[in-house]
Amino acid sequence: MLGRTYDREVCSAARALEIVGERWSLLILRNAAFAGMTRFTDFQNSLGIAPNVLAARLERFVEEGLMTSSGGAGGHPAYHLTEKGLGFKPVIIALTEWGDRWAAPDGPPIVYEHEGCGGPVRSELVCEACGEHPRPEEVSARKTEVMMRGLQARRSAKG
Amino acid sequence: MLGRTYDREVCSAARALEIVGERWSLLILRNAAFAGMTRFTDFQNSLGIAPNVLAARLERFVEEGLMTSSGGAGGHPAYHLTEKGLGFKPVIIALTEWGDRWAAPDGPPIVYEHEGCGGPVRSELVCEACGEHPRPEEVSARKTEVMMRGLQARRSAKG
Repeated sequence: MLGRTYDREVCSAARALEIVGERWSLLILRNAAFAGMTRFTDFQNSLGIAPNVLAARLERFVEEGLMTSSGGAGGHPAYHLTEKGLGFKPVIIALTEWGDRWAAPDGPPIVYEHEGCGGPVRSELVCEACGEHPRPEEVSARKTEVMMRGLQARRSAKG
Repeated sequence: MLGRTYDREVCSAARALEIVGERWSLLILRNAAFAGMTRFTDFQNSLGIAPNVLAARLERFVEEGLMTSSGGAGGHPAYHLTEKGLGFKPVIIALTEWGDRWAAPDGPPIVYEHEGCGGPVRSELVCEACGEHPRPEEVSARKTEVMMRGLQARRSAKG
């Protein structure tokens, strides 16, 4: 098992980053999720990354259940995203929207589309109580009992 | 200027990851955005990271316009998120939602709330044309003219 970088953290975002926070991870998932890539050589050619890095990332994704690998022609496996892996699509879309706004002076290089109707898809924040779409500065975080118990368990484990 | 990891990429998600894709970056932004932290020592104590790594991340955020730093008491600057930095809140929320679903067996350690009404805030995908909330597998990516021109410019620059 790989070391945990964010072991002190009782945080779902940190747990997600344990799995996809390493360099290239989210771009490999992007190519699997949005470009339909399944082959090692396709990921490698498209991203231009070192084969050992790519192999480590794919192995980790399979270990963590983000992808399955199945034997392909000539012994080259095909990698397919699971539901757990596809679950990162909203994260990639949110990152894209930040980049479109702040780092794409010529306009968006890609647009996301709803396969049902072809319309543009956006990620948005919504308040489940009042239905408003709060601006980022209007959203705060509140710790739950799960956080309190988690922090206490970590303190006990140390002491 | 720091090296660019994803220099070959014509992609807004990759541009975003150039800035926040390094280890600890998103957790530092999380603590600034949702825990209101502004001080070097607060980030360091809460995250337990090496001071040189934290200093490099904060410096980068200031360089990239995600934070401003202002001289504080005793020469210790305070770091405040700009609108550009606050723009990563939806990314952090999307990561949290993935972690809540797939890596939080005891339940969510934190919940996001709308400051206006106190209701729970979620991130969701929405189709702007039909108003549906597509599942991840129903969203695809289409390259735009900006992508085509960007790829061509890169090829010309190389040749």
